[in-house]
Amino acid sequence: MTKRILVPIASGTEEMEAVTIIDIMIRAGYDVTVASAEFTGELKIKASRGIELTAQKRLIDVADEQFDAIVLPGGLGGSETFRDNDLLVEMVKQQKYEGRLVAAICAAPAVVLQQHNLFPDAIMTCHPGFKNDIPENKWRSKRVTYDVNNNLLTSQGPGTALEFAMEIIIHFSGKEFAWTIAEPMITNPTLNYHQLGSEQ
Amino acid sequence: MTKRILVPIASGTEEMEAVTIIDIMIRAGYDVTVASAEFTGELKIKASRGIELTAQKRLIDVADEQFDAIVLPGGLGGSETFRDNDLLVEMVKQQKYEGRLVAAICAAPAVVLQQHNLFPDAIMTCHPGFKNDIPENKWRSKRVTYDVNNNLLTSQGPGTALEFAMEIIIHFSGKEFAWTIAEPMITNPTLNYHQLGSEQ
Repeated sequence: MTKRILVPIASGTEEMEAVTIIDIMIRAGYDVTVASAEFTGELKIKASRGIELTAQKRLIDVADEQFDAIVLPGGLGGSETFRDNDLLVEMVKQQKYEGRLVAAICAAPAVVLQQHNLFPDAIMTCHPGFKNDIPENKWRSKRVTYDVNNNLLTSQGPGTALEFAMEIIIHFSGKEFAWTIAEPMITNPTLNYHQLGSEQ
Repeated sequence: MTKRILVPIASGTEEMEAVTIIDIMIRAGYDVTVASAEFTGELKIKASRGIELTAQKRLIDVADEQFDAIVLPGGLGGSETFRDNDLLVEMVKQQKYEGRLVAAICAAPAVVLQQHNLFPDAIMTCHPGFKNDIPENKWRSKRVTYDVNNNLLTSQGPGTALEFAMEIIIHFSGKEFAWTIAEPMITNPTLNYHQLGSEQ
């Protein structure tokens, strides 16, 4: 069964992170839904460096659907909108409750997950600029961090977005398949990656 | 003086490459113009994995302007449109003639530069899938390759786009400045880079 991936976006979303995630999920053959988390329901959003991105749907239109992963790109403005969107927060809570993958990068782990304390006992990373917002016992200084018990994948910033996306593919489809996606992109699913999955 | 960067896009442009380049050029404080190379002049284009990108201008509207760099993202469909766009080819020829930077990644070096033989004596790289289109004496198997004599920077694919963009910053603004852009992105302007500038 094709994996279903939800990528919310909002004004101020970091475009390199969003596009890297979406592009690589599509390359993996997953069914990707890009949904606007704007309160207005506006599908066109202005990303953090001014690039205009267009969502396929409004978040409310997919709120009852089941996704194998909810993947939150960073960017401070976008993450703040995610945080303030009760529907999205509820969907992340439900995703965790049902044991399905939640993934977040850059500002999103700190601003969305931590500010709502959605993963009280999970290890996580985020952009080092938000390190002080994460309790010391939860913080991991790694480019990509996976918490096995909570099925939570977190990462640090635009420069780690590719590794983060590849890690989602490894999670769902294994390393051998990940190689077939990585190679034509001229990257390597293991290069630079820290050991995952053994901590907690 | 702020560096002026032209990034053409067209249907089939690789979105991860285009957005990574544009995002990082803006982070560096450069004046970035994203121009549609579509014959129709349509500003909205559907990138290679279906993400919709919006150009700021039509290429014809900026054809008389001077840019410090023309940077061509890859993606086969986009590169073919670049190749078939006489105005863009003329702008690249003029850019080379005046000694200003031309940069191309993925399919673009092979499909645009090589098919028109715009850089007959330059070393270059491109996506390894197009390696056979580049004469053996010109081909370099490096993630990013710079030809000093021709002021030509080339690179291989989505997985090298970040290094490629950082190399443009190093070219214009030096390594020390590049660090200030790389660090908040959680990357490193020297990590994984091959020695540049010493070949030819």
